[in-house]
Amino acid sequence: MDPPIVDGTTRLLGIVGDPIAQVRAPAMLSGLLRHNGVDALCVPFHVRPADFLTLLNGLRGMRNLAGVIVTVPHKAAAAGRADILLPRARLARAANVLLRGEDGRWTADMLDGVGFVAGLLAAALNPAGKRALVAGAGGVGTAICFALAEAGTSEIALFDADPARAEDLARRLRAVGAAARVASPDPVGYSLVVNATPLGMRPDDPVPIDPARLDPAATVADVVSKPVMTKFLLAAKRRGCFVQPGTRMTEYQMAAMAAFFGFLGGDWSPAAVAALGLY
Amino acid sequence: MDPPIVDGTTRLLGIVGDPIAQVRAPAMLSGLLRHNGVDALCVPFHVRPADFLTLLNGLRGMRNLAGVIVTVPHKAAAAGRADILLPRARLARAANVLLRGEDGRWTADMLDGVGFVAGLLAAALNPAGKRALVAGAGGVGTAICFALAEAGTSEIALFDADPARAEDLARRLRAVGAAARVASPDPVGYSLVVNATPLGMRPDDPVPIDPARLDPAATVADVVSKPVMTKFLLAAKRRGCFVQPGTRMTEYQMAAMAAFFGFLGGDWSPAAVAALGLY
Repeated sequence: MDPPIVDGTTRLLGIVGDPIAQVRAPAMLSGLLRHNGVDALCVPFHVRPADFLTLLNGLRGMRNLAGVIVTVPHKAAAAGRADILLPRARLARAANVLLRGEDGRWTADMLDGVGFVAGLLAAALNPAGKRALVAGAGGVGTAICFALAEAGTSEIALFDADPARAEDLARRLRAVGAAARVASPDPVGYSLVVNATPLGMRPDDPVPIDPARLDPAATVADVVSKPVMTKFLLAAKRRGCFVQPGTRMTEYQMAAMAAFFGFLGGDWSPAAVAALGLY
Repeated sequence: MDPPIVDGTTRLLGIVGDPIAQVRAPAMLSGLLRHNGVDALCVPFHVRPADFLTLLNGLRGMRNLAGVIVTVPHKAAAAGRADILLPRARLARAANVLLRGEDGRWTADMLDGVGFVAGLLAAALNPAGKRALVAGAGGVGTAICFALAEAGTSEIALFDADPARAEDLARRLRAVGAAARVASPDPVGYSLVVNATPLGMRPDDPVPIDPARLDPAATVADVVSKPVMTKFLLAAKRRGCFVQPGTRMTEYQMAAMAAFFGFLGGDWSPAAVAALGLY
């Protein structure tokens, strides 16, 4: 007799986003929690931006809630509302994880960049010394840029549909010592090219960067996780590039998330995710 | 390859209580939802009374939340906060289910009494014409009394540790035409005896009614669901009484809950619950 999927004793971990149907964390993390014998589930919380802060306030008193994972478009608001900002969230001005304290206070961290760089390192693609082009200076793009700066990229070129947003991020990266500047989306000359925009989630989205101009030796990454292989990544792969889909950033973030939320011990590795046979 | 336990598309049904570890609904309803091919889970929300209204407010905007089941000690507050009170909840001044409208409004109903009477009827124990003794005039006791009145019991005798609360309920029952009065907890002369107090949840709780004075031909019911067989029910069974545990009230309520929350079709019967092999 299998234990029930969920019981009165089960702890929860929410993931808050809008839209929410595309998120992988509920299946991945719930599978890992079960695999590791933890009586907890990761479940989707679908709220619009106008309702996000009211939800956070309502959840402060939910005693079996470990915390929430925060995804598009709530990452900046999450950092803005958190009671305690850990350094990565403070630098990024965005958070993708909020830990609920016993006293109802929210502690924020930003782990997208951690997962992104961990995924590259695991493929022996050390970003140290590389020239990087990043399209998208929103929450996830910002987190990735700071993680790349920390990992020692030699240069970060930024592009955003909103030039002021790109310029602001470049300035904040320079403030921590990174060689960052606003650039065009032309990927010629970069060995690491990242799409950190939402382009690719919808079938009719344009590609964020012209794949025909990618260096076949470049590493090309995307933050979109549904579809796993975006139009952009498929084109990059056809050119011979090593590609890292958004799911990989998520998979390599599971161990950091488990530790942040206090689920210690167990196997939270991408191999354990793969063993779940989800997708 | 099994579908994942939960995914980004999964709808939620919460159950709010304090304590929460003992509730059966998450395992039962989640099992039934899965069995019936519905992509939804019932999950526990543990909040203290001081945080209950803030939680309800926060959940108004959770678009993948069908609603919440409400249990001890929040049933009266749930009815107080609901935007729309259906007749059973209005009479009971308590609600155990809140449907979230698309516009964020809460519609309240009280299904405990429905499940309680459905359980008796399924065992061919029609309460019509019977004399009933009910200990406990709180939310669930009130719901059971109104359901018994509707089912045609000839008399309802009430006992509560707070005599004013019992008297108030008796008056409200008389207002809808029931022969209700406050009485002692002595079960002599009653053919239906109900514990609607929380006594029996803890191993050292006293029995709410003296089992030695039960008529062996009486039907004896409890609302406590953990343990399934309370000290009171075990003693009643030894005397030869037919006993209905709190789990039976819950099991016979599943179909009404599924319909209330809009999960139409499928098998929500106690036989389907039993087939889950949970307890």
